[in-house]
Amino acid sequence: VSIGFNLDPRLTSDTLPVSDLPISIVRLMNDARFPWVVLVPRRSGASEILDLSSEDRHQLFNEIVQVSSAVKMICTPKKLNVATIGNIVPQLHVHVVARNEGDAAWPRPVWGVGTAEPYTQADADAFVTSLKRALAAESSR
Amino acid sequence: VSIGFNLDPRLTSDTLPVSDLPISIVRLMNDARFPWVVLVPRRSGASEILDLSSEDRHQLFNEIVQVSSAVKMICTPKKLNVATIGNIVPQLHVHVVARNEGDAAWPRPVWGVGTAEPYTQADADAFVTSLKRALAAESSR
Repeated sequence: VSIGFNLDPRLTSDTLPVSDLPISIVRLMNDARFPWVVLVPRRSGASEILDLSSEDRHQLFNEIVQVSSAVKMICTPKKLNVATIGNIVPQLHVHVVARNEGDAAWPRPVWGVGTAEPYTQADADAFVTSLKRALAAESSR
Repeated sequence: VSIGFNLDPRLTSDTLPVSDLPISIVRLMNDARFPWVVLVPRRSGASEILDLSSEDRHQLFNEIVQVSSAVKMICTPKKLNVATIGNIVPQLHVHVVARNEGDAAWPRPVWGVGTAEPYTQADADAFVTSLKRALAAESSR
């Protein structure tokens, strides 16, 4: 818990909780069409990577790599898409999306494509459990 | 020049040369609708950030920050969009795009939206010159 930091309401409603890394809240986009993880650094008011201190920025980069490795390990995607966009939700957040040929947006990016298909509770629980395990494996390497 | 590294033909045709940073070739997307810079690490066969060594990865992150700062200084955008996608061009490349309300794709991401509008030679030269100057200023900080 970081005093004074509140997750953006849109991010809160679009995602499910996964875990906390040293700087980021890790959330799963509640959209079963794509394995899609979001990192949100707990830094109030940050909208760009440039808004972070150099130290925070490097920590965020390390966590992006850690999450990317975990998602790759779980999903073995054809391609990872990693991005910070934030045109609609200004709170700094980073997307890590596992992409495969034939997925609902391929080869286009996922943002703004179609409508999210929420996970079943069982599928969400299974993915979150896998992700936590993979993140723990990555952080212990 | 990095022996054995060749810029992807699609990236070559879609972009204009700007400069070389320690790990990345910096190119300007030839699309006057958006200030849009691309970094391509000179590492043959790399498709994901995870394919780079830890040292190369950190250098790339530093160069992403350097290019982001330079683009922000020149364009003072409402938002920077920073992404590595690569669903179509697998050679690892990172986009840094300056976005503003009312631009040709706002608030959507720029990828796959409409048709690129090539710069005039004078406008391309002016932007490349500004970018080189800003990159030099950033690297001397």
